[in-house]
Amino acid sequence: MFKKILVANRGEIAVRVIRTCREMGIKTVAIYSEADKESMHRYLADESVCIGPAQPLKSYLNIPAIIEAAKATACDALHPGFGFLSENAEFARLCDEKGIKFIGPTGEHIEKMGNKSYARKIMIENRVPVVPGSDGIVNDAKKGLKVAREIGYPVIIKASSGGGGKGMRIANDDDEFDKYFIMCQAEAKSSFNDASVYVEKYVLSPKHIEFQILADSYGNIVYLGERDCSIQRKHQKMIEEAPSVTLNENLRKYMGEAAISAARAVGYVNAGTIEFLVDKDNNFYFMEMNTRIQVEHPVTEYVTGIDIVKEQIRVASGQKLSLCQKDIKLQGHSIECRINAEDVKADFRPCPGTIISYHAPGGFGVRVDSSAYEGYTIPPFYDSMIAKLIVWGTDRNDAINRMKRALGEFIIDGVDTNIEFQLQILNSKDFVEGKFDTSFISNFNA
Amino acid sequence: MFKKILVANRGEIAVRVIRTCREMGIKTVAIYSEADKESMHRYLADESVCIGPAQPLKSYLNIPAIIEAAKATACDALHPGFGFLSENAEFARLCDEKGIKFIGPTGEHIEKMGNKSYARKIMIENRVPVVPGSDGIVNDAKKGLKVAREIGYPVIIKASSGGGGKGMRIANDDDEFDKYFIMCQAEAKSSFNDASVYVEKYVLSPKHIEFQILADSYGNIVYLGERDCSIQRKHQKMIEEAPSVTLNENLRKYMGEAAISAARAVGYVNAGTIEFLVDKDNNFYFMEMNTRIQVEHPVTEYVTGIDIVKEQIRVASGQKLSLCQKDIKLQGHSIECRINAEDVKADFRPCPGTIISYHAPGGFGVRVDSSAYEGYTIPPFYDSMIAKLIVWGTDRNDAINRMKRALGEFIIDGVDTNIEFQLQILNSKDFVEGKFDTSFISNFNA
Repeated sequence: MFKKILVANRGEIAVRVIRTCREMGIKTVAIYSEADKESMHRYLADESVCIGPAQPLKSYLNIPAIIEAAKATACDALHPGFGFLSENAEFARLCDEKGIKFIGPTGEHIEKMGNKSYARKIMIENRVPVVPGSDGIVNDAKKGLKVAREIGYPVIIKASSGGGGKGMRIANDDDEFDKYFIMCQAEAKSSFNDASVYVEKYVLSPKHIEFQILADSYGNIVYLGERDCSIQRKHQKMIEEAPSVTLNENLRKYMGEAAISAARAVGYVNAGTIEFLVDKDNNFYFMEMNTRIQVEHPVTEYVTGIDIVKEQIRVASGQKLSLCQKDIKLQGHSIECRINAEDVKADFRPCPGTIISYHAPGGFGVRVDSSAYEGYTIPPFYDSMIAKLIVWGTDRNDAINRMKRALGEFIIDGVDTNIEFQLQILNSKDFVEGKFDTSFISNFNA
Repeated sequence: MFKKILVANRGEIAVRVIRTCREMGIKTVAIYSEADKESMHRYLADESVCIGPAQPLKSYLNIPAIIEAAKATACDALHPGFGFLSENAEFARLCDEKGIKFIGPTGEHIEKMGNKSYARKIMIENRVPVVPGSDGIVNDAKKGLKVAREIGYPVIIKASSGGGGKGMRIANDDDEFDKYFIMCQAEAKSSFNDASVYVEKYVLSPKHIEFQILADSYGNIVYLGERDCSIQRKHQKMIEEAPSVTLNENLRKYMGEAAISAARAVGYVNAGTIEFLVDKDNNFYFMEMNTRIQVEHPVTEYVTGIDIVKEQIRVASGQKLSLCQKDIKLQGHSIECRINAEDVKADFRPCPGTIISYHAPGGFGVRVDSSAYEGYTIPPFYDSMIAKLIVWGTDRNDAINRMKRALGEFIIDGVDTNIEFQLQILNSKDFVEGKFDTSFISNFNA
């Protein structure tokens, strides 16, 4: 097992990883930017290294500085968390070359699965349904238009290297297609340094349902059930839950096994998530694979009792998975609300600032993953998510009631948050009845 | 279902009850003494009523004031929590007479099972093993001495109405017996206004293992497994866990069914705990029954997924238990550490005062039940327990590692606490190996 892990991230996910390391008896090294001197992840780690100024490119995306920090502190492994360098194939390769085990898939797998066209091809080969589309990159607008007409509007144009909602456009007719195709290419080029885009049928009123998988280097792969992440705003998830009200036992098994077969086909190792769109008639289509831990992993942990970060570390160290498929039973229901420091009324504008009062909720079935504390100043340079509130209940209603109770107890003063907005969603009849798709928030009147 | 519940308690257990009420959509009324104006339970409840000065006799034990508060706020039920009036039969009867449903057993059951000699008789009748002893109250020292000689030293002299370690003495020979018998009677008279005592074999090196039961008014009774509460100091529990390393599946079933048969024999309704001593050879002896929720109930909640307070409320309202025995599966392992504001080095002297910094631990498998917050002043009039830290793990080692991690994260500044001492226990070889009995702390060299 590893002796010391560098946690190449910040905020709550860095705290999350450090916690499991501590429980496993593994030392940790935190990295922090100059803006994160007072960040909790720094205090919780055994050691910490400043790796540069506030700007992500100069710190949390600064590959040489991070590798140097890991070498200087004699780390034998590195956990990338999510975001930042977590899906950077070059970084993963470099870590391994320098003798610092990257806790995640290989650079090759990150690269392949991160390429949307390649991932799509793999899925088709493994009989995982994909959305009808261009089956690969479309280089010019004319060819794109032909594809769009064939599959029928609306279509979605997506950057091949995209993510997080960037480089995506929906076209409803030929005119829109022509316009957005060019825009999408330009956006893809500027955001990801890769202008490749592809074209797909735009699935109407879909749910976003994703499957968590875990794979070791001995060919063992399991799925830990699904997460419903349909409550999202501009492709940013806001509420996630497990299991999904949409799936029955048969569909869950079918989709889970599809996820496994795709992962097996590429020889995938470590944690991964296969995201699907599920339409009203329960047709499901592969969307993309995330080759890292997800923000919303705790809901899966709550219903399975499995520490996913611990399994990531075990698997990366060469151990076998500590569980097999028949051991995995989903118990009860879990919901996560992302608590963001943002002004909901000002179009969800981030609200960095100083937290003058902080008190997290507690009690039965309540988990808080956060790096916030009383007196902490949220820097303006990073994501606005400051906490994740996760609850468990015997069933979905029980979990909803617990979440409402816990949100009501959460005290965060000094900065605006989306807590009140989350409560409004949880109180809405459609949410309670499970009648929602990915357009829920854009159509939501609080 | 009840519309509004008065929570006749303070601190973390009041917070605990209010949380479940809120999740069930039931309004709550907190009561508070003049010393508890700033107590969290008051803020979390929908309404609050001051019921008198700081001294417990004038507030939390002030029956007329509490009944009046319940009537004035139109409460249809009352939850007593633990301690204070929770095992006061007269209070339970009075509540029911006034149309305020007492959430607990009837006054009759509180009285009967609270009487140690009666409880012992019931157990014997139901073939539940009891410690060899006087089989009832012993009124004079001579008769007592005869019993002591018959069962053999060491023996324990116990107040019939006692609890919490008061009115108990261990005698190792005739001389000690004569001396302690008189002392015990006097202590029993002054503490409980009842001089009755009884005499029992003092079980050497026992574990304290208790079974949680739940009973509804339709004759359904279940047991939720056991809790090992052997880590105690002067009969005050400090660490509790579920399940116990001592019991195997057969013994668990046997003891659980014994607990049920005793409860069934008296027609018991609501939550209750049957406490046993278990000796080195796994002989078990009934000790006493607690007719209320216990401080340590969260460890049972963690391994069963059952909200015990919710079941108490359901059952009291006339509903059936929401579960039957075959539904109850113990999953993983849970440990609770009681966090007390006390100076361990000064013989655990309580340390009331102002908490200048407070931050609770979080993450996977961590539950905090507390009424403490940053800026809160712990009054000197009540119990020194200010928080309960409860963890869950896939097995006992996992739970111990998680508890150590979580204790290490817990920030409570401004008052002394026993957190460091708890860590020392968790790090001790004997604790980790499960080699402990109720004498563990008195023999413990930190």
